[in-house]
Amino acid sequence: MDFNKLSLEMHEENKGKLEVVSKVRVETKDDLSTAYTPGVAEPCRKINENPMDAYKYTCKANTIAVVSDGTAVLGLGDIGPLAAIPVMEGKSILFKRFGNVDAFPICLDTKDTEEIIETVKRIAPSFGGINLEDISAPRCFEIEERLKKELDIPVFHDDQHGTAIVVCAGIMNALKLIGKKMEDVTAVVNGAGAAGISITKLLLSFGLKDAILVDRQGAIYEGREGLNPAKVEIAKITNKNKEAGSLADVVKGKDIFLGVSAPGVLTKEMVSTMAKDSIIFAMANPTPEIMPDEAKAGGAAVVATGRSDFPNQINNVLVFPGIFRGALDARATGITEEMKKAAAVAIASIVKDDELTADYIIPDAFNPEVAKVVAKAVADEAVKLGITK
Amino acid sequence: MDFNKLSLEMHEENKGKLEVVSKVRVETKDDLSTAYTPGVAEPCRKINENPMDAYKYTCKANTIAVVSDGTAVLGLGDIGPLAAIPVMEGKSILFKRFGNVDAFPICLDTKDTEEIIETVKRIAPSFGGINLEDISAPRCFEIEERLKKELDIPVFHDDQHGTAIVVCAGIMNALKLIGKKMEDVTAVVNGAGAAGISITKLLLSFGLKDAILVDRQGAIYEGREGLNPAKVEIAKITNKNKEAGSLADVVKGKDIFLGVSAPGVLTKEMVSTMAKDSIIFAMANPTPEIMPDEAKAGGAAVVATGRSDFPNQINNVLVFPGIFRGALDARATGITEEMKKAAAVAIASIVKDDELTADYIIPDAFNPEVAKVVAKAVADEAVKLGITK
Repeated sequence: MDFNKLSLEMHEENKGKLEVVSKVRVETKDDLSTAYTPGVAEPCRKINENPMDAYKYTCKANTIAVVSDGTAVLGLGDIGPLAAIPVMEGKSILFKRFGNVDAFPICLDTKDTEEIIETVKRIAPSFGGINLEDISAPRCFEIEERLKKELDIPVFHDDQHGTAIVVCAGIMNALKLIGKKMEDVTAVVNGAGAAGISITKLLLSFGLKDAILVDRQGAIYEGREGLNPAKVEIAKITNKNKEAGSLADVVKGKDIFLGVSAPGVLTKEMVSTMAKDSIIFAMANPTPEIMPDEAKAGGAAVVATGRSDFPNQINNVLVFPGIFRGALDARATGITEEMKKAAAVAIASIVKDDELTADYIIPDAFNPEVAKVVAKAVADEAVKLGITK
Repeated sequence: MDFNKLSLEMHEENKGKLEVVSKVRVETKDDLSTAYTPGVAEPCRKINENPMDAYKYTCKANTIAVVSDGTAVLGLGDIGPLAAIPVMEGKSILFKRFGNVDAFPICLDTKDTEEIIETVKRIAPSFGGINLEDISAPRCFEIEERLKKELDIPVFHDDQHGTAIVVCAGIMNALKLIGKKMEDVTAVVNGAGAAGISITKLLLSFGLKDAILVDRQGAIYEGREGLNPAKVEIAKITNKNKEAGSLADVVKGKDIFLGVSAPGVLTKEMVSTMAKDSIIFAMANPTPEIMPDEAKAGGAAVVATGRSDFPNQINNVLVFPGIFRGALDARATGITEEMKKAAAVAIASIVKDDELTADYIIPDAFNPEVAKVVAKAVADEAVKLGITK
């Protein structure tokens, strides 16, 4: 199917994808007097007396902003805030469809880190959470960190953590399937942007033995020249043996390849140099780092991609609706590492031991259980951590 | 009915009033591929090539922000951005109900004029228009003026212009009914805030002979001490005879009283000193400046209030849905004085000459024709002015 053509027609026909509608009836004068003046003054007064009542009487309780500056949109790069709207609308309808979260796209006419932080803080009263989206690295790191500190509502950069959470879920199940332990395996992460770094950190928090990140200059190790601050940071906790060289060099003997990079950069030959029963997550979109049949021909035991037409799709939609559903349900003040880990474990748990195969390590995007299970795990964790309001 | 109690229950039951929903189906993998990746990249590319295509492919075409800092909410005053949300949600559902405009509440955590301007400019890409709401005077004047200049989408401060437009419509019909001409009559406007000043300006643009604004210190005239910049400005074009004194003093012999002030400040005795067949618009809410029966006992020929339980309700809902519907339909770059005048004439025209009575000078809030007629008049005027894109 020509999804480009279909998509263009669909977007034109509907003038976008989002609509803002009333949950209450406005058909009579009494309806007006209840939903608007004079009745509306009463919830206003209550919230004025107790700000927490905003969660009781307003859409803040269930509404998040999908915030982007349009600098890192899909594979399209820095296309600006207007051209980013279709993606942010798409994200918003997925939040609603899978998590019953009301999400609204805020596309920002600034790329300045401080201005983005400032703007999001100023518009925060209307929202119960902030989902950052398609903001380029390294600015995305500081923006997320600062907003997490300076706001009392959950802030989550999906490009980093959404991918990391679903990758961790997939890796847990893949390791279980082939009988290896997290503590014994080393991963090569090709692509050291926001997603690559976040995946690495979350896997390490699950006990991964070691990871080697690879960027366009080759393997990243502590002390390598020309590293940006985010890479300097990650180099401190990865590549313990300071391996240098190309992807082909460092992938030798490793257990896991995780690609968040570019089409076709991993070859069958490279896979064949990896450890026995290797795990390949080739997540470049739409064309993966290696096609699944090639990876298997090279000896891979489990292959996942970002695509819906191959088994084991690594799809953030398994994560973000449930994460925010849970955070909103618990009125969590943030989304912590523990909550992310709980989400990964919850996603992995959907695939039961007796269902686990090389072609089924990750639940399907349309599995209606996923968001519910993730939401419960995330909300329970927030309550356990005592970070609710 | 106890609308306060009903309203509180309704807001709690629904957690506010707004919901953000999808206009398109998301039930299959193909749906996902059309609404989201990979298909969504195509409208992004188109908009990147031609920014105007945002109006073709995204919700910007039909979506406005209802922006408030919560400083002048209903009669409640400066209750802050959280407590303002119920009103902004209410406004948003009225936009949808009457104008099929998708409106989303943005409540700002700043009262600083420059910061408000800056923030609205930065979030503007997602929106096809900005409705400013419940921002206290005199900041609201500069905020609106600056945003009108610095943005290429319509900006409208409803508290000023919405009221002014419906008042003008009502005055036109009231004058027609009693056989007086705009050029021959003088109005006393009690209350010199944003609404009072805007009403006065629009009536003058329709040819009103003169107006005298009255604030807590009495009649405003050029040179009076202690006037803020907005009052200094309006004093230049009103009260030609520099009448001084109290409301009771200046209302004598005048044709029209327009109250945007406080309950009960106009007495039957004052009305009886006015010109024959006086017109009284007592718009303080919920208790008007004078009750209709008192005004009539004092000699008023036509009385209007802000209340739905008396005839002739001066209700902004007659204006804002149609104004933005028309501006969005025409892709107008702004809402000009001419467009506001066209809206007032359109609203007045809904009441046909043979229907006009002292109890029917203004159409009902639920009259489905109003928004359509206003939208067409506003859009036509924008096209005529050549301010569309």
